[in-house]
Amino acid sequence: MELYFLGTGAGLPSKRRNVSSLALRLESERSSFWLFDCGEGTQQRMLNSPLSPQKLEKVFISHLHGDHLYGLPGMMASRGFQGGESPVVIYGPHGVEDFLKTAFSVSHTYLPYHVQFVTIYDGWSFEDDQFQIHCRVLNHTITSYGFRIEEKEKPGRLRAEQLQLLGISPGPLYGDLKKGLDVRLPDGTILRSKDYLDPPRPGRIITLLGDTRPTEVSIDLAHQSDWLVHEGTYRHSDAHLALNHGHSTNVEAAMIAKKAGSQCLILTHLSARYNEKELHDYWQEAAAIFPNTLIAHDHMSIPLS
Amino acid sequence: MELYFLGTGAGLPSKRRNVSSLALRLESERSSFWLFDCGEGTQQRMLNSPLSPQKLEKVFISHLHGDHLYGLPGMMASRGFQGGESPVVIYGPHGVEDFLKTAFSVSHTYLPYHVQFVTIYDGWSFEDDQFQIHCRVLNHTITSYGFRIEEKEKPGRLRAEQLQLLGISPGPLYGDLKKGLDVRLPDGTILRSKDYLDPPRPGRIITLLGDTRPTEVSIDLAHQSDWLVHEGTYRHSDAHLALNHGHSTNVEAAMIAKKAGSQCLILTHLSARYNEKELHDYWQEAAAIFPNTLIAHDHMSIPLS
Repeated sequence: MELYFLGTGAGLPSKRRNVSSLALRLESERSSFWLFDCGEGTQQRMLNSPLSPQKLEKVFISHLHGDHLYGLPGMMASRGFQGGESPVVIYGPHGVEDFLKTAFSVSHTYLPYHVQFVTIYDGWSFEDDQFQIHCRVLNHTITSYGFRIEEKEKPGRLRAEQLQLLGISPGPLYGDLKKGLDVRLPDGTILRSKDYLDPPRPGRIITLLGDTRPTEVSIDLAHQSDWLVHEGTYRHSDAHLALNHGHSTNVEAAMIAKKAGSQCLILTHLSARYNEKELHDYWQEAAAIFPNTLIAHDHMSIPLS
Repeated sequence: MELYFLGTGAGLPSKRRNVSSLALRLESERSSFWLFDCGEGTQQRMLNSPLSPQKLEKVFISHLHGDHLYGLPGMMASRGFQGGESPVVIYGPHGVEDFLKTAFSVSHTYLPYHVQFVTIYDGWSFEDDQFQIHCRVLNHTITSYGFRIEEKEKPGRLRAEQLQLLGISPGPLYGDLKKGLDVRLPDGTILRSKDYLDPPRPGRIITLLGDTRPTEVSIDLAHQSDWLVHEGTYRHSDAHLALNHGHSTNVEAAMIAKKAGSQCLILTHLSARYNEKELHDYWQEAAAIFPNTLIAHDHMSIPLS
């Protein structure tokens, strides 16, 4: 599992930061990736990344501002040109489907793969055998969502060496024990799965938030997250701008991470107004409150260990 | 007057060529520029160009395929964020307005400047005091237009030295003669404007075509153009692909330039499949037919002398 930042700028693209897009790579988990937001130029950023659009499985749109949305038609169309065949599910607020269908209709674009639209809402959730996703409305100038992604607990390691000491060779029996099934041997002995497994490994928790003011909802969503990606559009000296535009400062985001008890904070969606020196100060101000803070940049890759 | 190529690739962005967009800079003529097509990422390309979105005056959309259109919402929205105030006119096929209005409505985008939509058609033309634009339907998989831009004849230079020999000092009289007006002196002498002006300077002719198969219409549009920008998606060895996808080869484009009697051909909209060596061959094949051929690349700037 890995976070790959495709665009980490706010509102407008700049020479160094493109508009918002973030990939959650699930290469070993499901050989695919999920995309969170898709600002204009996301497909161009992907050209210089390890991401192949064919492996796109899900798109989550946090909110409908153009810098989080306008790259979607091109990315989806190019995925088709490049031979993408597997279905894609797009989760987002009401309006994504209208935008995409208008773009495709006007441009005579026909995708060679199936697209499913899922309209999300406050409290919406999703679950499969690997993940649970929970979605809440944050506090922005328009409806903006945050996502808490909980990986499910994984079974502990099978202590094969213990079985081999009993003279039991590797085979289907190992698989059953690994799955949590108890097994009866030909001589009638019953092997209890729990006696041969390490304790289950807890899943990772990743919280990815759309544009937002600091809000209690973010603290709930990010509760004891291993990773929290929070916008930090402005430095705290520009707190009035954050307030006026429905955004957060570095310090506000750090306070959220602290209150939520997150393990690590990644600040993204940075205004282009800050130079290198100011970005260092920006980091210091946040780290003074929440030491385990990183500042995202385009093409930053973070393995989620 | 200058052509500035923002995106010179076909269909999909590649690492070296973005999707289609071309600016006609009219800095000395009207302190503005016109944009021909606006594929995704055009505003990002502008960041590393001398073009400032505030100076955008007109947008021409040759056809509605996404690689010529999808950058329009972001470019227009960013122009607003950056303080663009002057009105913009968008000329294109029916559908551009629907696409843009849906994008803005869904994303709650309100522009601080006026946008006028003009639906173009075969034979559509435009004229002001500097330019005449004529538009024709080409031959592509969907309706695709080409534009012939004729600069109007400019009055010849006033031979001031000749007037000064007659003892006539610079003043409003000079301006009248320059405008083509005859002037009566206090002593009754009539000065004929034509006697004091160099011959008028012919305007430049630039023909910019959308995606197309080779067609007689292109030859008409480009008749004795100073500059012809023609797509050349494929090498001639891939002529079957050009035929199948409604495009032209380098050789087909060169034949059009030759038949039209153009002065210079610029090939653009190149498939990403060709490497450096193949692009050299591509150029040689075209230049064998039409020697004055250039291959466009992103950020190429051509002064139109």
